[in-house]
Amino acid sequence: MKLGMIGLGRMGSNMVRRLMGAGHACVVFDRSPEAVEALVKEGAEGASSMDEFVAKLPGPRAIWLMVPAAGVDAAIDDLAPRLAPGDTLIDGGNSYYVDDIRRAKQLASLGLHYLDVGTSGGVWGLERGYCQMIGGEPETFHRLEPIFASLAPPMASSPRTPGREKREPGTAELGYLHCGSAGAGHFVKMVHNGIEYGLMASYAEGLSILRHANVGTKPREADAETTPLRDPELYAYDFDLGAIAEVWRRGSVVASWLLDLTAQALLEEPDLAGFAGRVSDSGEGRWTVKAAIDESVPAPVLSAALYQRFSSRGEGDYADKVLSAMRHAFGGHAERKV
Amino acid sequence: MKLGMIGLGRMGSNMVRRLMGAGHACVVFDRSPEAVEALVKEGAEGASSMDEFVAKLPGPRAIWLMVPAAGVDAAIDDLAPRLAPGDTLIDGGNSYYVDDIRRAKQLASLGLHYLDVGTSGGVWGLERGYCQMIGGEPETFHRLEPIFASLAPPMASSPRTPGREKREPGTAELGYLHCGSAGAGHFVKMVHNGIEYGLMASYAEGLSILRHANVGTKPREADAETTPLRDPELYAYDFDLGAIAEVWRRGSVVASWLLDLTAQALLEEPDLAGFAGRVSDSGEGRWTVKAAIDESVPAPVLSAALYQRFSSRGEGDYADKVLSAMRHAFGGHAERKV
Amino acid sequence: MKLGMIGLGRMGSNMVRRLMGAGHACVVFDRSPEAVEALVKEGAEGASSMDEFVAKLPGPRAIWLMVPAAGVDAAIDDLAPRLAPGDTLIDGGNSYYVDDIRRAKQLASLGLHYLDVGTSGGVWGLERGYCQMIGGEPETFHRLEPIFASLAPPMASSPRTPGREKREPGTAELGYLHCGSAGAGHFVKMVHNGIEYGLMASYAEGLSILRHANVGTKPREADAETTPLRDPELYAYDFDLGAIAEVWRRGSVVASWLLDLTAQALLEEPDLAGFAGRVSDSGEGRWTVKAAIDESVPAPVLSAALYQRFSSRGEGDYADKVLSAMRHAFGGHAERKV
Amino acid sequence: MKLGMIGLGRMGSNMVRRLMGAGHACVVFDRSPEAVEALVKEGAEGASSMDEFVAKLPGPRAIWLMVPAAGVDAAIDDLAPRLAPGDTLIDGGNSYYVDDIRRAKQLASLGLHYLDVGTSGGVWGLERGYCQMIGGEPETFHRLEPIFASLAPPMASSPRTPGREKREPGTAELGYLHCGSAGAGHFVKMVHNGIEYGLMASYAEGLSILRHANVGTKPREADAETTPLRDPELYAYDFDLGAIAEVWRRGSVVASWLLDLTAQALLEEPDLAGFAGRVSDSGEGRWTVKAAIDESVPAPVLSAALYQRFSSRGEGDYADKVLSAMRHAFGGHAERKV
Repeated sequence: MKLGMIGLGRMGSNMVRRLMGAGHACVVFDRSPEAVEALVKEGAEGASSMDEFVAKLPGPRAIWLMVPAAGVDAAIDDLAPRLAPGDTLIDGGNSYYVDDIRRAKQLASLGLHYLDVGTSGGVWGLERGYCQMIGGEPETFHRLEPIFASLAPPMASSPRTPGREKREPGTAELGYLHCGSAGAGHFVKMVHNGIEYGLMASYAEGLSILRHANVGTKPREADAETTPLRDPELYAYDFDLGAIAEVWRRGSVVASWLLDLTAQALLEEPDLAGFAGRVSDSGEGRWTVKAAIDESVPAPVLSAALYQRFSSRGEGDYADKVLSAMRHAFGGHAERKV
Repeated sequence: MKLGMIGLGRMGSNMVRRLMGAGHACVVFDRSPEAVEALVKEGAEGASSMDEFVAKLPGPRAIWLMVPAAGVDAAIDDLAPRLAPGDTLIDGGNSYYVDDIRRAKQLASLGLHYLDVGTSGGVWGLERGYCQMIGGEPETFHRLEPIFASLAPPMASSPRTPGREKREPGTAELGYLHCGSAGAGHFVKMVHNGIEYGLMASYAEGLSILRHANVGTKPREADAETTPLRDPELYAYDFDLGAIAEVWRRGSVVASWLLDLTAQALLEEPDLAGFAGRVSDSGEGRWTVKAAIDESVPAPVLSAALYQRFSSRGEGDYADKVLSAMRHAFGGHAERKV
Repeated sequence: MKLGMIGLGRMGSNMVRRLMGAGHACVVFDRSPEAVEALVKEGAEGASSMDEFVAKLPGPRAIWLMVPAAGVDAAIDDLAPRLAPGDTLIDGGNSYYVDDIRRAKQLASLGLHYLDVGTSGGVWGLERGYCQMIGGEPETFHRLEPIFASLAPPMASSPRTPGREKREPGTAELGYLHCGSAGAGHFVKMVHNGIEYGLMASYAEGLSILRHANVGTKPREADAETTPLRDPELYAYDFDLGAIAEVWRRGSVVASWLLDLTAQALLEEPDLAGFAGRVSDSGEGRWTVKAAIDESVPAPVLSAALYQRFSSRGEGDYADKVLSAMRHAFGGHAERKV
Repeated sequence: MKLGMIGLGRMGSNMVRRLMGAGHACVVFDRSPEAVEALVKEGAEGASSMDEFVAKLPGPRAIWLMVPAAGVDAAIDDLAPRLAPGDTLIDGGNSYYVDDIRRAKQLASLGLHYLDVGTSGGVWGLERGYCQMIGGEPETFHRLEPIFASLAPPMASSPRTPGREKREPGTAELGYLHCGSAGAGHFVKMVHNGIEYGLMASYAEGLSILRHANVGTKPREADAETTPLRDPELYAYDFDLGAIAEVWRRGSVVASWLLDLTAQALLEEPDLAGFAGRVSDSGEGRWTVKAAIDESVPAPVLSAALYQRFSSRGEGDYADKVLSAMRHAFGGHAERKV
C-alpha cells in the first residue's frame, strides 16, 4: 500500500523504515526538511508542503500522524480541508481517547475516516515490530490491515498461547488488534501504559530494597527523633543488583522485557549514578487513574506508581513542609530549618 | 504521692512541673546536673547519683522513666539492682510494646512491677495535660492512679460524649486509661501515632492541592515527555491557605487540634519557606504498619503516610533512578542526566 | 435579609431554620408540598410554584439552591428566565467547581450573579452552624454577608488562633470565607472533603489494627499458602475501642470532631455490627484526586482512602479474580474455587 | 552428585526428577510413603525413615529440604543429630531469611554447613528449570554447583544481555546465583516475590479498568450519595480482555511471563467466574514490606499490592464499618444497615 506519514521523529521515521522494508511506499512530511531528506535517501517520497504531501497520495488516502499529542488537532485542522471523502486519518501517537471520540465524529461529518492507534515498542520497534491497539470503524481497520500487519512483530516472536491453536487466529497473535469503536485503541494503550508504570515501580522498589540491604552496616544516630534499627545484623548484605536482575531473567516468575532492559542498565552502571531520578510522566498514567476513578475501580498500585513519579520531581515538597510545620507546632520537633 | 522521675528533657521536666502543681512530691535525676538544678529551684528534690535518687524514695517506690526509647533498657539495668520487691518502674517514653512484654516478665522475676505508659500531648502537655494509655497489672495501675489523674487533662476539656453519663465513668473521660496487660499502653500509643501520621498527611496533601490550584496560570512546556494541562483555566486560583485552615476550624467536619496548629503555622508563614520538608519519623509509624501486616489488616493510608516521610528525606532516590534508567532503555527518553 | 431557598431536604430545611432564628425572612420551595408546609408552620413563606416563589422575592433577589448536584443545572434552567438582572443565584450544594465556572459565565451574560458555596456541617449544622467556603464576585459576596454570617458558627465556637488578634479579622474566624472567583468555594469544599476521606480512613485503619490485636489468640492454619504468625504472644490484646477513642479525646494529638463522633458510635455499638461497611463516596473525593493529578501533586493518602471505599463495595473483585487466576497458572495454587 | 531430598510435594518431587534427568542420584524421603514410592519408580533411592535416609547418603552429605517454612526447624532438629561434620543442609523452601542467619550459626557450631536457596519457577520448573538465589559460605556453594546448574534453566532460555559477552560469565546467566552470606538467598527471593506481588497487581488493576470500561452503558442512580458519571458516552467499550492480553505479548513494553499466563487464563475464561478472588499471600510479600520499613525505603506500590490481597479476603471489613459509622454520625448518611 501507499501510506503518508506526518511527523518524522524517532517513532515516525522508524515506522516508515519498517513499512518500506515490507514493501510499502511512503510519502513523508515533517516541519524539519532534514528529517524528510533523511528518509528520502532511504527510499521514501518526500514532500515540502502539506499540499505537495496530499497531492502525492492517491485516493482513498491513508495518512498516519505521528506527532506529539498536543499537536494532533492542529495537524488535523491543517489537513482536513485538503482531503477528499473516503480518505483516512490515523493518529498513531499518544492522544487522549476522549479526543479520538470527538475527532472521529467531526471527521465523519466531512466524510473522512479516523483510526486511533496506540503503539508500543519505543526505540525497539524498528527491529522488533510495534504492538498496535486500534480503534475506529471495522471497515476502515480492515482496509488498512496490510499496514498494521507490516508494522507488527512477527507472530513467532512469542511462543503461542496454549489453546489458541484451536481457535480462529484473529489478529491479536499477529501483534495488532481492533479493540473497538473510536478511542478504543488509545484507551487500551492508555491502560497499557498505566500498567507499565506499575510494573516499573514494582521493579524499582524491589531493587531499592535490595540496594539498601546494607543499612545495618552504616552508622545511624539514635535520638528521640529517629528510631534505631533493632537488628542491624539483619541488614548487612551488599548485593550485586546487575547479577540479581540477570538471574531473574531465567526461570523466574518476574521475568519480563522490562527486566531484560533493567539487567542491561544495571550491568552498565550498577549505581545508576548518571541518572538524576527525576521521572517524567506523559499523560497515559494520569488518564488511567482518572478512568479508574470514573469507573469506581480501585487502582492503588497504579496510582502509587504515578505519585512516586510526581514526588521524584519535587512536586510533594509543599506537603512535606506542612508536615514539618505541624511537627514543629505540636511537638517542638526541631525540623532542620532551611 | 511521691514519684521519682528519671530523664528531664522537655517531656520529663514538664511532667514533674504538672505533678508538683497538683501537690505531688518529686525526686528527679538526669545525666545533666543543670536539668536537675532547674527543677530543684521549682521545688523538686534533686539527686546527683542513682544511689541518691533511690535512697530519697520511700518504698514501695514509683519511678517514672522519661528517656529515649533506645536508653530504656540501660536505665532499667542500672536501676533494677538498687530496687526492692514491690517497687514499680514506669516507662513513659515511646518504647516498642514488644520490649514492654519482655521487660515486664524480667522485672516480675525480681518482684518488681512495670507499667508502660504511652503519653500524648507533646510540648502542650504541661498546660493542657497528658493523654495517657497504660499497660500492665491492674493493681499496679490502680495504686498509681493519683499520678495519672494529675498528669491527665481535666474531664471538662472536651464536651462529654452523649451516652457516657448513663454509664460508670471509667477513667477514659479522665484522660487516662488502663488498656490491658504489659505492652498494651505502648501498643495503643503506637497506633495512635500511626493514625497521627495519616491525619497529618491528609491535611498536607489537601493543602498542597490548594496551593497548586494556580498551575494553570504558569507556563508548562508541551513536548512528547509532558502532557499539557488540558484546561488551564480550571486551575487559576490563588488561595489564602491560612484563611482556609482558619475557616475550617469552625463548624466543619475536618476540625481538629492538628488543624488548629496548622492554621497558626500558616498564619505565621503561608509558604512555610522556613521548613526544609525533610520529615522525621520516630518508630511508632513503622511499628504500626508492621502490626497491621502481622494482623493481615490492610493499612494503605497509614503506610502511604509513612512512605511519604521516607521520600521527603530522599530515601526513594535509587528507585527513581531505576525508573529513569528503564525509561531511557525502552524509550530512549532523554532523562536529564545529572 | 430576605432569602429564597429551593430544595428542602435535611440541609436546606435546617438552613432555613437557622436563618429564621437569626431574624431573616425566607421564601421556600420544594417539589414536595409537605416539605414546604413543614417550614411554613415554622414561619417561612411558602411557594407552590416557581412563579410564585420568584414573585414573593423582592429584587434584587437572592436565591439559594440546595439540591443534589445532578439537579442544579435543571433548577437554574427553570429559574433563570424568571429572574431579572441583578438577581443572585447561590449554589450551596456539592457541585463540581468546573460547573460553577461555566454557570457563572452563562448567568453573567444574562446579568445574573452566581455564588458557589461549599458548606460543611451536615446534620449538625442547625445547632453548630455551617462552615461556608464561597466563590464568585466579591461584591456579590459582600452584599450577602448577613446571610453567610447567620449560617456560620459563632466565632467563639473555637478558641482564637494565636496571632489572629494582631490582624484584621477577615471573615475566616466568623466561619465563612470568600475564597476566590467562581468555583473557588466548591474547589475548597472539594479538597475539604478529600481531606475528610483521608482523616476518616486514618482513624478506621488504626481502630482496625487495635481490633485485630488479638489475632495471636485465634487459631490460624499453617500451610504452604499461609505464613504462620511468628510471635502470636505479641497479639493477645482485647482492646476496648470505645474507651480508647474516648481517652484520645482529651489531650492527645489525634483529638478531632470526627473522633468525638467515633467515640460515640463505638460507645453505642463497639463491634459496629449494624453497619454493612459498604461505604459511599459522593464526588468530592474523586474530584480531589483528579485535581491532584492535573496539578502533578502526589496524593497517595487521599487516593488510598478513596480506593478503600471502592473496594468496600466490591469494585475490586475482578482485579482480585485476575490475581487468583495468575496464582493458579504459575504456582498451581488451588485458589478456593467459588 | 548424590543428593538427598526431604519433602516430596510438587516442588520437591519435580526437582528430583529434573536432577535425575541430568544424571544425578537422589535419595528421597517424605512422611508420605506414596510420595517416596512414586519417585522410586522413576529411579530414585527411597528411604522409609530418617535413619535410613541418612545412611544411604555418602559423606560429606548434601541434603535438600523442600518442606513448608513452618516445618524447616523441626526437620533440622530431626536431622542434625544424625549428621557428621562437613555435611550440608540446603533449605530450598520459602524460609524467612532471618531464620537462615540463626540456623547457619547454630549448625556451624556443629560443624555443619547450611545454604539457603530461594527458588522460583513453580509448577513450571520441571520443564523450564528453576531460578535459584543462594546464600551461605562460598565454598559450600561452589561444591554444590553441579546440583544448582542442573536445576537451573539453560542459559539459552533467554537472549543474552548485551554487554555480558565481554565479561566473565559468572553464574547469573546460568540461572543460579550466589547472592551473599547466610540468608542472602532467601532475602533476594523475598524481594523477588514482593516484586511479583506488584507486577501481578499492576496487570490486575489495568485489566479491571478495561473490564469496567462499559460502565457508561449501565444504569447508575443519581442521588445525594452517589455522584453521576459525567460523561457516560466515554465509557461504552466492551473489550475482549483475552485478545488484549494476547496482543500485548508481542512487541509491547508490558510483555512478560506473567502476561503470558494471564493471556492463557483469559482465553480459557474471560470473566474468570471460576475464581472467588480471595487471594492468599504467603509470607514473602509481608517480609518485603517489613524490610523496606526497616531500611527506610518507600515501597508504596508493593505495599498497596499486599493490602489489596488482605482486602480481597475481607480483612478490611471492620475499617469499612468504622467509615460507615462515621458517615452516619456526621452526615446522617443512611448506610445500608445489614
